[in-house]
Amino acid sequence: MSMAMNDSFDHIGEVLRNAETIAIAGHVRPDGDAIGSIVALGHSLMLAGKKVRILSEDKVPLNLAFLPEVGLVEQPPESIENLDVAVALDTAVKDRLGDNVNRVFAGAKVLVNMDHHGTNPRYGHLNYIEMTSPATGQIIFDFLKSQGLPMDAVVRDHLYTAISTDTGSFQFSSTTAHTHRIIAEMMEAGSQFWELCQKLYNTFPLRRLLLQKALLNEMKLSAGNRIASWAMSHELQSEIGTQPGDTEGLIDMLRGIDGVISPVIFEEMADGRVRVSVRSKDERLDVSKVCLVFGGGGHRMASGARMAGPLAVAEQRFLEALEDEIKRIG
Amino acid sequence: MSMAMNDSFDHIGEVLRNAETIAIAGHVRPDGDAIGSIVALGHSLMLAGKKVRILSEDKVPLNLAFLPEVGLVEQPPESIENLDVAVALDTAVKDRLGDNVNRVFAGAKVLVNMDHHGTNPRYGHLNYIEMTSPATGQIIFDFLKSQGLPMDAVVRDHLYTAISTDTGSFQFSSTTAHTHRIIAEMMEAGSQFWELCQKLYNTFPLRRLLLQKALLNEMKLSAGNRIASWAMSHELQSEIGTQPGDTEGLIDMLRGIDGVISPVIFEEMADGRVRVSVRSKDERLDVSKVCLVFGGGGHRMASGARMAGPLAVAEQRFLEALEDEIKRIG
Repeated sequence: MSMAMNDSFDHIGEVLRNAETIAIAGHVRPDGDAIGSIVALGHSLMLAGKKVRILSEDKVPLNLAFLPEVGLVEQPPESIENLDVAVALDTAVKDRLGDNVNRVFAGAKVLVNMDHHGTNPRYGHLNYIEMTSPATGQIIFDFLKSQGLPMDAVVRDHLYTAISTDTGSFQFSSTTAHTHRIIAEMMEAGSQFWELCQKLYNTFPLRRLLLQKALLNEMKLSAGNRIASWAMSHELQSEIGTQPGDTEGLIDMLRGIDGVISPVIFEEMADGRVRVSVRSKDERLDVSKVCLVFGGGGHRMASGARMAGPLAVAEQRFLEALEDEIKRIG
Repeated sequence: MSMAMNDSFDHIGEVLRNAETIAIAGHVRPDGDAIGSIVALGHSLMLAGKKVRILSEDKVPLNLAFLPEVGLVEQPPESIENLDVAVALDTAVKDRLGDNVNRVFAGAKVLVNMDHHGTNPRYGHLNYIEMTSPATGQIIFDFLKSQGLPMDAVVRDHLYTAISTDTGSFQFSSTTAHTHRIIAEMMEAGSQFWELCQKLYNTFPLRRLLLQKALLNEMKLSAGNRIASWAMSHELQSEIGTQPGDTEGLIDMLRGIDGVISPVIFEEMADGRVRVSVRSKDERLDVSKVCLVFGGGGHRMASGARMAGPLAVAEQRFLEALEDEIKRIG
C-alpha cells in the first residue's frame, strides 16, 4: 500500500468544490480523532458555502460533548437527497462507519476515504491514506491548508482535539516535528488550547474515580508481579452507572506499574461474556498469541479477546495462559 | 520588572566563554525543569570544553533518575577552587538554591541568574528573567541556540524534560507556539521523545498506586460536593514508604472531579504538623485568603499553609474556613 496510490489533495479538493451537498462521517464508537476530524472538515466546508451533513452512527461521547459546534453531529437520517459526495474519515474498514451511515453513503455519487490507518483497504472512489500521520486530524489540517479552505477557531479546536487525543498529548511515538509545527501554526492563528485541554484531560465524572477506586482495591499482581490484572464485574458497572468513555485508559493505571510487563482488564458484559484487554510492555512477549487461543487477536503489544463467562473462570483461564507465555520468554 | 532589565544572551554568553570553571545549580527539591535546565546547560558547556560542576542541594528525585547523564549532578562540595562563574537556574529566590550551594556560589567571581519566575528579584550580577517562558528550559534552548553552543541528544532530552514537565505535556496556558516550534526543531535534529515520555509519565512505583488507593478510599466531598479533600496520615506514608515525588500531582485526582471547585490535601508531616495544599477552579474563589488565615499564602488559584496538628483538627478548621469562603461567593 504505497503512498503513490493516494489521490492528490487537489483532486479531492476539486471534487468537494464541485459538490453542492456533502455528507461526512467517522467510525462507530467515535473518539477524539473521529469527532475532531468530521467536525473540522464539515465546519470548514460549511464556511466555504457547502451544504454539509455531519453524521455519526453513535452519539458524541460525553467527554467530548463540551466541544464547540458538536451539535452539528447528527445521527444518520433515512437518506440525504442529491448527495454529491460522502466522506469517510478515520475509518479503517467500511463496516466501521455503521449500518445507518453506510445506507446514507450508498446514495452518494462519490465516496472519499481519508484515514491514517495503514490497513485501510482503500474502499473509496478517492482515497488518501497516510499511515505516518499520528491522527486523521493532522491529514485534515494539511488538506484544508493545501486547498485554502477556511480554518476558524472552531475548526482549529477540533483539529487540536483530534491530534492531541490520538498522540496522548504529543507523547506517542507517532508524534512528529510536523505535528508540533501544526499546533504552533494554529496558536499563531489565534488559538489557545489550555481551556480545551483542561476539559479534555482534567475533568471527569465522579463515576470515573469510583471505577479507579474499585480497580485499585481489587487489582491482582501475579507471575512474580509481572502481570497486573483487574476483573470488572457487570454488577459494579451497573452500581456505578458506567457510561461509554468511562473505562477508557483504565488499563494505563496497571500498565504504568514498575516491573509489570502485562496489564490485563477483564470486563464482564451484560450478556455474561467477558471482554479481555491485554497489553505487553516487553518486545519478547506477544500477547496476541495468548488472545488467539481464545478466539481473539490484535497486535503484538496490544490485543483482546471475548471469552465465555463466568468472569472468575475466564479470568483464571486467561491468566494461566498468559503466565505460561511469560514463562516461555524467561 | 520589565524585559529591558535583562542582560543580553550575548553578554551572558561572553562571560561563560571567558570562564574556565563554571558551577550550575537549580532549586532545592528539584523538579523536571530544574534538573533538565542545569544538566542541559552544564552538558552543553562541557561539550564546549568548559570545566563544569553541576550541583543540587537535594538529590535527583527517583522519577527523573532514568535521564541520561544525571550522574553529573552532584551534591555541593565544601567549595570549588577558582570558580569563575556560578549560574542559578529556575530559582526564584536565592535562598532556594540551598545553604550548601549558596556557600559554593559565594566563592564565584560572577553570579548569573536565569529564570522564568516573574517574581525573581534579579539577585545575580547578570540576570535573564523571562516570565512569559513556560519553563527555564525554554530559555536555555533559546540561549544555547543564540550562542551556537552544542546541543547533542543529551542536551535535547533534558530540555524536552524541562519544557514538557513544566507545561503538563504542553497543556498549560503558559505553552506558546514557540514552545511547539522548539520541540519540532529538536525532533528535526534527530531526537524522538516517546521513550522518554513513557518513562516520565507512564511509569510509577507500586507505592504510587497505594497512595491513590488510599486517597480514593478516604477522600471526602463537602460543601455540596464543591470541596474534595483528603487527609494523608503520617502512618500511611510510613506504611507505604513514600518517597519524594510520590505525592506529586495527587491533588489532580481530586481537582478533576466534575463540580468540584476546590480540591485540598492535608499531609501530616513527621513532626505532627500539617501541610495543606489547596486549589481553586473558580476565578471568584481566592484560596490564598483562606491560607492567609492560617499563616500561609500563595496564589489565588493555588495556595498552601502549614498548620499545627493533630491532623483531624487541622482538617476540620481549614475545611470550615474554606466552606465559609465558598459560601461568600455564593
